[in-house]
Amino acid sequence: MREVNIVGIGQTPVGEHWGHSLSDLAREAVGAAFLDAGISRVDALFVGNMLAGELSHQEHLGALISDQIGLRGIEAARAEASDASGGLALRQGYIAVASGAVETALVLGVEKFTDVVGNARLAALVAGLDAEYEGTHGATLTALAALLMRRYMHEYGVELEAFAGFSENAHANAASNPNAMFHNTLRPGAFAAAPAVAPPVSLFDAAPEGDGAAAVVLAAAGRAVESASPPLRIAASAVATDTLAVQDRPDPLFLAAANLSAGRAYEQAGIAPSDVDVFELHDSYTIMAVLALEACGFARRGEGTRPAVEGEIGLAGQLPIATFGGLKARGHAGGATGLYQVVELALQLRGEAGRNQVEDVRIGMAQNVGGLGGTAVTHILERA
Amino acid sequence: MREVNIVGIGQTPVGEHWGHSLSDLAREAVGAAFLDAGISRVDALFVGNMLAGELSHQEHLGALISDQIGLRGIEAARAEASDASGGLALRQGYIAVASGAVETALVLGVEKFTDVVGNARLAALVAGLDAEYEGTHGATLTALAALLMRRYMHEYGVELEAFAGFSENAHANAASNPNAMFHNTLRPGAFAAAPAVAPPVSLFDAAPEGDGAAAVVLAAAGRAVESASPPLRIAASAVATDTLAVQDRPDPLFLAAANLSAGRAYEQAGIAPSDVDVFELHDSYTIMAVLALEACGFARRGEGTRPAVEGEIGLAGQLPIATFGGLKARGHAGGATGLYQVVELALQLRGEAGRNQVEDVRIGMAQNVGGLGGTAVTHILERA
Repeated sequence: MREVNIVGIGQTPVGEHWGHSLSDLAREAVGAAFLDAGISRVDALFVGNMLAGELSHQEHLGALISDQIGLRGIEAARAEASDASGGLALRQGYIAVASGAVETALVLGVEKFTDVVGNARLAALVAGLDAEYEGTHGATLTALAALLMRRYMHEYGVELEAFAGFSENAHANAASNPNAMFHNTLRPGAFAAAPAVAPPVSLFDAAPEGDGAAAVVLAAAGRAVESASPPLRIAASAVATDTLAVQDRPDPLFLAAANLSAGRAYEQAGIAPSDVDVFELHDSYTIMAVLALEACGFARRGEGTRPAVEGEIGLAGQLPIATFGGLKARGHAGGATGLYQVVELALQLRGEAGRNQVEDVRIGMAQNVGGLGGTAVTHILERA
Repeated sequence: MREVNIVGIGQTPVGEHWGHSLSDLAREAVGAAFLDAGISRVDALFVGNMLAGELSHQEHLGALISDQIGLRGIEAARAEASDASGGLALRQGYIAVASGAVETALVLGVEKFTDVVGNARLAALVAGLDAEYEGTHGATLTALAALLMRRYMHEYGVELEAFAGFSENAHANAASNPNAMFHNTLRPGAFAAAPAVAPPVSLFDAAPEGDGAAAVVLAAAGRAVESASPPLRIAASAVATDTLAVQDRPDPLFLAAANLSAGRAYEQAGIAPSDVDVFELHDSYTIMAVLALEACGFARRGEGTRPAVEGEIGLAGQLPIATFGGLKARGHAGGATGLYQVVELALQLRGEAGRNQVEDVRIGMAQNVGGLGGTAVTHILERA
């Protein structure tokens, strides 16, 4: 397989874009990515989206968006794995370029939540769970995350305060990210006093859904592009799965797909977890961040809150995470989230992260998770 | 890119499977494909499905089905491009094996229409069109196909009877296909007397939606498998797109995506249209079969009904199409249709088509189309 570089990135702010359609958001992110890459044409488009069918009555996004961005006729596809759709689209774009099937590819994540609110949106979101064994019985993502969090606290004797640092870090980093949904920082004590959503999951544990689009341009290594920024090499790309239904897992507190996917990625890149300088993880719920750190080898089982408690996850810490706010405070843009993670990693590796810059980033890792761990997609990026 | 072979095939009957869930259908087709290939494990799963989110409240099928077929943990993805989802999934499985990313892959198409009927199903199906410019204005696939057919008849002075042969051929071939939805043949005159759906599209012009699943097992060429049947080489795999909205096309009677996709496939395979021995085309409506024949170089513009009128599309004709009944009579299983086409081509190339066997098939082509031509996926198979 050929080496593949990221040669352009683009994103829209995450938030409630009442005046922008799905296509508007897509065009804005793609325009920015093309400008950044210094190109205006690619061989193929891969779109990550989770719910446009349910929320906008619009499937078939590959054809729709390739036309709307001025590339009518090119190869196009939509990938879906709930909120891991963006990472999955990147995986497919990567393989397409690595294989030699195409020379360049555009990978876009886009999601439009606004316009559908309340129970209708909740019903749509539940489609990422197991419909027969979870959805029809009234389970939601938040309810299941609450069960996982309570079980974790019980099993390992961890107190609620131990989780606070994840939310505080996310909000602190989002404050200086112009594309973030939230810019407020959390006062001391705010986490413990936050309104409950599904106890023990509170408002500051659950990532907000926001509209958004993010895109990257891929090119075979060695292919000349007129970007002002250095290309970044995709050193690893790996997908793994687990049961959709949490109840079917032998150990619900072990994210097997995250573990498998990260393990395959480390092997491909020839690195160990300790080589990772920045980790953009899938903090859809605080408990998911904790379990991801454990599954990916950054903390022992039962000790996943320690990096936060000990201040290691900040921009100046040993393992910075959610460096632009993560899902919690940059906002969770559904099928676009996996691309936001990679765009943010790219900014870190390029040294273009501004006030969010982590010092001397050589290796970055992004992990995009679908639902409560049914799919996990891991990418490792390096300076080319 | 490495050469990729199809080493196993499986399918369920197409129809109203009231007693079978989406997962049941998937397991049945996969079980048959594994048995046929003589293997029980693959490195990756690619699922083509168009509407499980809307119809079954179930997205995230990659993870769900890899667990249900006993392969928990493997890489898995769902591809979607309306009713070209199955062909698209095969394209992605092909690239994954060709690239060297995986050694073997399972490609599954599955769709479950039953349980949702009437307007709710119609609303879901419309998501494959352009939601802003077609769907919200009340356009449906059938209504748009009727406009295309009427325009075609007007433009080229073609009478209704010229279309009859497509439906008669499809029903004749389905009669001896145990997996077909319909086994009735059409009496002379039946086509012209059929009840109108949206004039001039009648009941015998429009393919019926049916539940079903079909699967193929892919392996890198040269990899030993214990199948009793010979491997088939994927000689070409190509995707192209067009506007979703028919009104945006400079010439609505020209299927640009079908033309581009077939052209790329001929180039990859190093063949001309005249080298194709069997063509499984996307006859979702008779007019779509006519336009596909023209777009793919089998008939001149305006002469796409001639192969049917002159008896060339039958099993003993110059260009057999819909050899197991096509979408019209085998049934249109949504995102599974692209895989049914390929499974049927494989039976023809292996010489295992029984009473539907075309003589001396060396090269077969399948084209799976999304909506009214927004996406077209073309595969060419040869004896390995």
